[in-house]
Amino acid sequence: MALALNLGRRGMGRVWPNPAVGCVIVQGGVIVGRGRTADGGRPHAETAALAQAGAAARGATAYVTLEPCAHFGKTPPCAQALIDAGVARVVIALGDPDPRVAGRGVQMLRDAGIAVTTDILADQARVDHAGFLLRITHNRPFVTLKLAGTLDGRIATATGESQWITGPEARRAVHMMRARHDAVMVGAGTVRADDPSLTVRGLGIARQPVRVVVSRGMKIPADCQLARTARETPVYLCHGANSDASAWVDQGAQSLPCAVSAGQIDPLAAMNALADRGITRVFCEGGGMLAASLLSAGLVDRLVVFTAGQAIGAEGTPALAAMGIDRLAQAPRFVLEQVQPLGGDIMHIWRRA
Amino acid sequence: MALALNLGRRGMGRVWPNPAVGCVIVQGGVIVGRGRTADGGRPHAETAALAQAGAAARGATAYVTLEPCAHFGKTPPCAQALIDAGVARVVIALGDPDPRVAGRGVQMLRDAGIAVTTDILADQARVDHAGFLLRITHNRPFVTLKLAGTLDGRIATATGESQWITGPEARRAVHMMRARHDAVMVGAGTVRADDPSLTVRGLGIARQPVRVVVSRGMKIPADCQLARTARETPVYLCHGANSDASAWVDQGAQSLPCAVSAGQIDPLAAMNALADRGITRVFCEGGGMLAASLLSAGLVDRLVVFTAGQAIGAEGTPALAAMGIDRLAQAPRFVLEQVQPLGGDIMHIWRRA
Repeated sequence: MALALNLGRRGMGRVWPNPAVGCVIVQGGVIVGRGRTADGGRPHAETAALAQAGAAARGATAYVTLEPCAHFGKTPPCAQALIDAGVARVVIALGDPDPRVAGRGVQMLRDAGIAVTTDILADQARVDHAGFLLRITHNRPFVTLKLAGTLDGRIATATGESQWITGPEARRAVHMMRARHDAVMVGAGTVRADDPSLTVRGLGIARQPVRVVVSRGMKIPADCQLARTARETPVYLCHGANSDASAWVDQGAQSLPCAVSAGQIDPLAAMNALADRGITRVFCEGGGMLAASLLSAGLVDRLVVFTAGQAIGAEGTPALAAMGIDRLAQAPRFVLEQVQPLGGDIMHIWRRA
Repeated sequence: MALALNLGRRGMGRVWPNPAVGCVIVQGGVIVGRGRTADGGRPHAETAALAQAGAAARGATAYVTLEPCAHFGKTPPCAQALIDAGVARVVIALGDPDPRVAGRGVQMLRDAGIAVTTDILADQARVDHAGFLLRITHNRPFVTLKLAGTLDGRIATATGESQWITGPEARRAVHMMRARHDAVMVGAGTVRADDPSLTVRGLGIARQPVRVVVSRGMKIPADCQLARTARETPVYLCHGANSDASAWVDQGAQSLPCAVSAGQIDPLAAMNALADRGITRVFCEGGGMLAASLLSAGLVDRLVVFTAGQAIGAEGTPALAAMGIDRLAQAPRFVLEQVQPLGGDIMHIWRRA
């Protein structure tokens, strides 16, 4: 199952709106088939693994990281494929809460006389499939927030200089993280300040994540890099319903009008809109206003922080804008997952407490 | 020599104004004497090690982490003691730049026919003796600055709540660090906000570090913990020459009037005043104004940062106040020495680049 989970994770950021599932088929102690959900979401992991196993699947054990589907979607049900291949036993990490599956996959298998074991490495599967699960259960994607700044939590000097606080190793890690998410998100202030492209570079990937810009008023230049390249790599605009996104839409960006609350795009509305489009994993790169808004709304599932060995002082731009927090008890809390040196910086990763 | 350095380090924070020296005497492959500079600075490491070795010192090799003294201070010269004991060879980590020694210790030994080897593990000795060396060469102590805050570099909420952002393990590490410095320093704002005692607690140490308060205007209550306990554990006041420190002095605090520049105590003047009193290692615990002032003046040799898994946002008190930095190239830079999880927090230690 650990191998199946590993295989599945390779699909992260490439298979949405589908889950990044992995499947391993074992016959007499030998692996006869391996598969993961293919880029774009089809074929599913089971189909790929069964194709590799061929006749060796008969009487074999299939390890799958999520309950096999039981419905005809854009592919026939995987539960049926496992039955047709004659596997004797199916081991499943986690049930699929999708109402079209939700236990029916397991039932189909059992009804066909196949032995089914569930909840194997379920905790890891829950982490790996968190984006898919949140989209089904809460209509929002899994959100990773990146903060990259100085020892004192600043992301730019008073004059706006921010390139480069962190070193090339940290920037490379950011590109790898972008590649494992369905979408990369920034606020309008970051677009104005940095004119970023937000693409994954230097890793030779075939499928770029969607670029998402959150802007209440659309006061961002229509000749910036993101707008100009919207036909090559998708750009979604989470903008205020009353603002004019036409200059971007004309260049190929997609408009996702969102509710505004307290003068800002309502962060949950933006996440709902992205989930509606099929996005399961979002990598937010700031700036400070958007980051604070997501944290305040309790929408940050994972924090990735890069800290450089520099100090700028209080005139510098803060990594997080105001959050309206008076008491420590109100402050969002995170649990350390990992900390390591990276180039001259440190990288620390935290998950929601 | 590594053992001698280890021994010496045990004296850190306890032997000022003397260096924390270690000495090991080896006779025929066997350690016959070990010593470190005693608490308070006397007797010296060589004296202690020779006393332990007794007659076994004759013909032995002595490893010393700093050049033995050649002058009559409050103790007779250690170089003479080594000669009198009949050691055959002396291995020295680092020369002593004190003008009363400065090569004369080595010369005395060589003149007596003893073989002398120098510069063994000199880099480590330079780190261990950094406070002593800086005091001799620059008339200032070695400065460690502690920053303890949230993921976004805040040390308190807008309402001043700061207890406790970091956990008990981090606080215990702070007490251990206090114990290895000659003095613990805070600014007036921290005294007003937290009324700290700044003592080392829970480690059973015999000698508390000096408590140093930096206050231009002495607008701090005279009934706070530090003032009230000044007769038990020394309190030094680095205050503006025009301000009135009498209410504190009456309770036993020592007045160190310092020059004021740009409306603040000149940080170098404060460090000079502490060096004049014999202080070789200072542990500064903030607040943000004092920390920024030390960093801006280039006086921070080591940064110890504790980061908790919380986010407060921009209304929170910043770990560093304004530093007048416009360009990243002006920002003080540090090189990572160590990073590790500590309780629920992370601890990262940086040295001056």
